[in-house]
Order: sequence, then C-alpha cells, then structure tokens
Amino acid sequence: MSFRTDTAVTGEGNTWAATIHDGWDILGNANGGYVAAIAARAFCEAVGRPDPISVTTHYLAPGRPGSVELEVRIVKEGRRFTTGGVTMRSADGTPVVEVLMNAGDLAATTDEPDHLVDAAPPPLPPFEGLAPRGEHPVDGSPSLFRRLDVRIHPDDAGFGEGRPSGNALVRSWFALADAEPIDAIGLVFAADAMPPTVFNAALPLGWVPTVEMTTQVRRRPAPGPLRCEFTTRFITGGFLEEDGVLWDSGGALVAQSRQLALVPRPST
Amino acid sequence: MSFRTDTAVTGEGNTWAATIHDGWDILGNANGGYVAAIAARAFCEAVGRPDPISVTTHYLAPGRPGSVELEVRIVKEGRRFTTGGVTMRSADGTPVVEVLMNAGDLAATTDEPDHLVDAAPPPLPPFEGLAPRGEHPVDGSPSLFRRLDVRIHPDDAGFGEGRPSGNALVRSWFALADAEPIDAIGLVFAADAMPPTVFNAALPLGWVPTVEMTTQVRRRPAPGPLRCEFTTRFITGGFLEEDGVLWDSGGALVAQSRQLALVPRPST
Repeated sequence: MSFRTDTAVTGEGNTWAATIHDGWDILGNANGGYVAAIAARAFCEAVGRPDPISVTTHYLAPGRPGSVELEVRIVKEGRRFTTGGVTMRSADGTPVVEVLMNAGDLAATTDEPDHLVDAAPPPLPPFEGLAPRGEHPVDGSPSLFRRLDVRIHPDDAGFGEGRPSGNALVRSWFALADAEPIDAIGLVFAADAMPPTVFNAALPLGWVPTVEMTTQVRRRPAPGPLRCEFTTRFITGGFLEEDGVLWDSGGALVAQSRQLALVPRPST
Repeated sequence: MSFRTDTAVTGEGNTWAATIHDGWDILGNANGGYVAAIAARAFCEAVGRPDPISVTTHYLAPGRPGSVELEVRIVKEGRRFTTGGVTMRSADGTPVVEVLMNAGDLAATTDEPDHLVDAAPPPLPPFEGLAPRGEHPVDGSPSLFRRLDVRIHPDDAGFGEGRPSGNALVRSWFALADAEPIDAIGLVFAADAMPPTVFNAALPLGWVPTVEMTTQVRRRPAPGPLRCEFTTRFITGGFLEEDGVLWDSGGALVAQSRQLALVPRPST
C-alpha cells in the first residue's frame, strides 16, 4: 500500500487500466487529486515522458473503488512536451474524469535560473511538532489520513472543532505515509489533498464538489514534506476557486494549482 | 468586422468550421485568447449551452489567418454543465489548439449571493481619460489594437518605451472596438488580450509562448469596459504563470484566468 502502487497503471498504446483503491476516499468518493494522479500516470507512461507539466481535470462522476479504464489520446508530440487527453471510465462505462495535460522532462529545466519569486513558503511550526491529521471533519473517516500525512497550521485547523478561522486559508505540511518520496505525479495528488479552504470561511461544512482543477508542476520536489498554502478569494455566483502553492523542503516552488468548485451545501 | 463575426462558427454535430481572421495577430500569430474564443464558441453552439464556464486551452501551433476545422467531442451532458473537448486544426491538419471545457447557463446562477470577495477591481484612471493602446511593443503592429481597446494604467504602461515598472503587473481597461458588448465568450478573449506582465519585469521583451491557459467565467459582464488585473509571482524553471482577474463595469468579478507560459527569449 503506497501512493506509487495504488496509482499504478497497466496497458499500452491508447488503452490503459488501473484500480481506484479503497482508502483514498472521503465519504466513499475517491479524492480528486488521487484520481487525477492515476490519469496523469497513465498519460506519462503512454507517451514515455516522466513528468506532468500542466494537468487539467474535469470531474464528472465520483470515483468509486474498483477497476477503471483509461483511454489516452495524443494530440501532439512536440520537442519539449507531449499533449493530449485521458478519459477515465468506471467499469460500467461512466466517465469519471476527463483530463487534458502535457508531459515533459522537468530534469531538463531544473537548472534554469529563478527570475522572480514573489512569495515565500508559508510559515509553519516544525513538521515533527504538529500532530498528523486524524480524521475528516465531515464524515469522521480516518481512511484517507492513513495514506497521507497532513499537518495543518494550528491557526487554520480549528474548523474540525467548530472554530473556523474566518479566513479562507489552509497552510499545511504534506507528506505521503511512511515518508514515501513525492514525485511530480505526487504533486497532482498533493494539490487536492487538503481540507477545503472554505471550511475556514463562514460557510457550513459540506461536500465541495470540484468542477475543474489545473495543477502546473514547475519542478520535481526535493525529498521531505511539502509546505502548502491554499487560499480562496472569491465565493460568488455559486462558485469558488481554490488556489494552491506548493513548496519543497528546500524552499523551491514546485507546483501551483487552481480548482473551480461549487459552493458547498450542508451535509445531511 | 467585429469580435462576434470574426469568431463565428458553422457546422453541426461534431464537425465545425471557422476562419482565423486577419488582424487579430501579433507578429503574424493570432492572439491566443481569440483562438480559444473561437473554440469555445464552437463548443457552446455544438452543445446548445450559452456560456463557457471553465475553458482550458493548450497551444500547439501558431494560429495563422485562414480556415480552421473544429472537432467537438462531448464527454458528459450533465444537469448543469456539458463537458468535452475541441480540437482546432488548420487546413493542412496541424493541430493549433486542444481545448477541454464545460458550458452552462450563467443566467441561472447570477443571483446567487456573494459569500466572499477578497479583492477589488484595480484602481484605474477613468477610461475616457486614457489613450487607447496604439501598437504592440514587440513588432509595432497596430492591427490587434484596431479590434480591441486596451487602456493600461499609466504606471504599468512604460515598458513600450523602455521603462518597465519593475513589477510584473498590468492593470488595464478592456473593451472591444466600437463598444461591442462583451459576453462570456468575449471574456475568454479578454483574459489573454493584454501585453504580458513580464514586460514589466526585468526581462527582455520578446514572444511569450503560452503553453496552457485556463479561464473560469463567473458571470456575464454588465455593459461597459472591463477592469482587468494581471500579475505574475513566479518566473522559475523556464516557466512563468500569469494570473488574471476581470471585473465588469458594475464592480462584479466576471472571470479569473491563469496561463502557464515559457520565459521569453529576446526577439531578434
């Protein structure tokens, strides 16, 4: 049981298969980043390029544990990137996610200079001094939190006990269970693995359905936990965005993300 | 000659056609937002839903004036959204852009309350008091600026005369020529119609190739020019992001955008 094995894909050409494993879910629905990571891995393996660069996922139906089919469609093989799509369908043919992405080799650009870094990793108490998150505030389920190790800034963590901070902000450490290394595909998961920022806004807790999410990977992370910051500025017209910035243990920007989600309705 | 007529599409089912019209280009390459808008219009017309909600475009080859084919692929018709893809190919079959998007009806959600608006339209001198942008700083071409009316904040407009502000920020009014109304598809264009923010950073002017761009539309704009703010925080690893926030004349958030682009190389 690891992220690597639980996102494994098999296949060739345009047709790939994977399993949505039990335990990566909230309320029985597989985490959106986990599902996107499976699709990204299928694409990267199909096209023979190691790193997802920009991954856009539209969420069409909940991902339930079980086998899924992945249809990979290559639109362009370029010098730097291969671009195309992945459709993930459940065993009964229902589309679960539709992905548009490109893949490349981030090792080729890691040494390019940083011209502008107009932000810094969020200030967090040391990883070792914070308690791992134990259970999900909506359903109380501990399962996902056996797969990952999320340690939220104390100022942002009160929503589970009915004390939202009032700021739509979640700052957190992110690691995989057993300190499994995080690669570029792992960042696609990490970008959607935190409790929603809106849990800290003045809205009722509830399911926050992601409509679309794009994760842009800049660099493969150095070993160690990530420092992540997620913010929401606009909850309007029934929609909200959630923006993520992910930093590695060396203080380098490794990914940015944005998701468009529906304003949560109270869970019943 | 209008945005509406120059983004018109014809077709039925999965097969649509359009023309990349002359004059929407910089250096002979059609503006990326213009090309994405044509694809978004094809999708909206094909699926019979008026508004693009989230539009992700991967740029694969320059859009040259001439006829293009648009293949529309529907993945899911849901209650609120229809989701699918559009491949735009030039007459010789070269893929120009690959789009993943959904479409819906924003009139249905316009009355939902604003729960959080943690930003404000950028402060701009009155539209009437600013000069329209006349020509492009890289190629001196005036053609695109006959189609649209971009009036940049004076503090952000000096890059054309060799005086970049030093901040990767562009605040600007946006209108279409002849005060043509801006609909949700027009926002997809507007989100990519400004000079790049990096022209105000300490980098040489040059072509800034967009890899991927996602525009999320929240609301159909009220009549009048838009107020837009584009920022870049990270120029690292050979990539940069550009984030846009678009506001209508009534002060409502109408769209957000993010593009991933390659760090410009000096033009020769």
